[in-house]
Amino acid sequence: MSSPTPDLLSIAHSLADAAAAQSMRYFRTPLDIITKADESPVTLADRAAETAMREILAARVAADGIFGEEHGLERLDAERVWVLDPIDGTRSFITGSPLWGTLIGVLQGSHVVLGMVDMPVLKERWIGQAGRGATRDGQPVHASGCTEVAKARIVTTSPDIFAPADWQAFDRLSRQCAMRRFGGDCYGYAQLAGGTIDLVVETGLQPYDYLGPAGVIEAAGGVITDWQGQPLGLASDGRVIAAATPELHRQAMAILAAQA
Amino acid sequence: MSSPTPDLLSIAHSLADAAAAQSMRYFRTPLDIITKADESPVTLADRAAETAMREILAARVAADGIFGEEHGLERLDAERVWVLDPIDGTRSFITGSPLWGTLIGVLQGSHVVLGMVDMPVLKERWIGQAGRGATRDGQPVHASGCTEVAKARIVTTSPDIFAPADWQAFDRLSRQCAMRRFGGDCYGYAQLAGGTIDLVVETGLQPYDYLGPAGVIEAAGGVITDWQGQPLGLASDGRVIAAATPELHRQAMAILAAQA
Repeated sequence: MSSPTPDLLSIAHSLADAAAAQSMRYFRTPLDIITKADESPVTLADRAAETAMREILAARVAADGIFGEEHGLERLDAERVWVLDPIDGTRSFITGSPLWGTLIGVLQGSHVVLGMVDMPVLKERWIGQAGRGATRDGQPVHASGCTEVAKARIVTTSPDIFAPADWQAFDRLSRQCAMRRFGGDCYGYAQLAGGTIDLVVETGLQPYDYLGPAGVIEAAGGVITDWQGQPLGLASDGRVIAAATPELHRQAMAILAAQA
Repeated sequence: MSSPTPDLLSIAHSLADAAAAQSMRYFRTPLDIITKADESPVTLADRAAETAMREILAARVAADGIFGEEHGLERLDAERVWVLDPIDGTRSFITGSPLWGTLIGVLQGSHVVLGMVDMPVLKERWIGQAGRGATRDGQPVHASGCTEVAKARIVTTSPDIFAPADWQAFDRLSRQCAMRRFGGDCYGYAQLAGGTIDLVVETGLQPYDYLGPAGVIEAAGGVITDWQGQPLGLASDGRVIAAATPELHRQAMAILAAQA
């Protein structure tokens, strides 16, 4: 059993603090009052935040690998790999919505031992540690006990993230749910960990989009895999289904896979 | 020219404070630890918040009319009518999302002289006063200067709020925009007032859903009408278009009205 040491958690907090210090400088700041006016505020914020995170990793766990959105891959063969998305929800960021976050996943072998979804505007920090449960700002959180699609609250970011066949599958599933919602980016995964959303189904994601949330959801008692039920890793196909319970997960996957 | 007196603003602040005190008691609270467990937390919160607001109005402006979501209509023939939505975004509230708000509009004749969008979780209070501009937490805000659909960022709450023909119109318009987003409920109107969203197009709204936001948007320099360009009032058809500029408003309305 691999389990995160307190040191990993402390490093993750430092990463999130450093990322937020950078990203919040640019949030809601018009381009024309930013010096390097040839790039978008979110691009500048994304890069500055990931640079700040990489400096901390270099100082504290120099041998670890890094899979980052902005500045690429380093040492993916290391025992431990930090998977970083400095700003998940760039469209939220651009449009002044608070629903963007910094995502951190710590991969040991094929397991996410630590996951973090940090929401700088909301000032909410969601953390999952394998074997130690999940918390929001230090308070324990749990996925809901929902076991039936017909009673489930489902969320996805936008119809526009789906290819047509995948949209048909999502639409079929979500119309059988008690409630479907759009919007939210990474916050949907936090809501699932907190028990207020029961299903999140998305496509087109990258490892840095789902491995941080995966660590939170699994520690909160939820299930997160690809649409075939395979564990998520650095080489998944980008289709993600997260569910509050194994029963709900199985039911929802079957509906996604059904022929129209 | 009717213009709100400072007294109206002070009353509106009191209303929002009282509503938030009630609604936040229920936010993210599981039903089974609420005493009256036969009703949903959002229903209880909605009613308690509107009751608290009505008590303040009864004490301070007893002759004014009230158009409330939960407890109905009173004295709509009064010189001044308070239009109240204690919790706009009940699905956000239910699913633990912070994007629900308390909406307050003060109607004098056919004019909204004061509008407020209060976001209790975000701790953001957006205020518009006719002739005095709009603010977020006391800081002036302005709608963007966007004049072209092709450069506009558009948001609506969900594809599910549209009847099929209205969806075709929205889809036609939004696909011509630079960016389209879903989700957000009343927050989309605040984003428009703050200059980070350029268009909001919705249907199926009630006066308490749009008159509070209308006061903020108009004071921020934006335009908000029904889909035919008619001013919003207590008898509108529930289709709302808000735009950052008159030019953008005209362009977007023409695309909505075009035959498919």
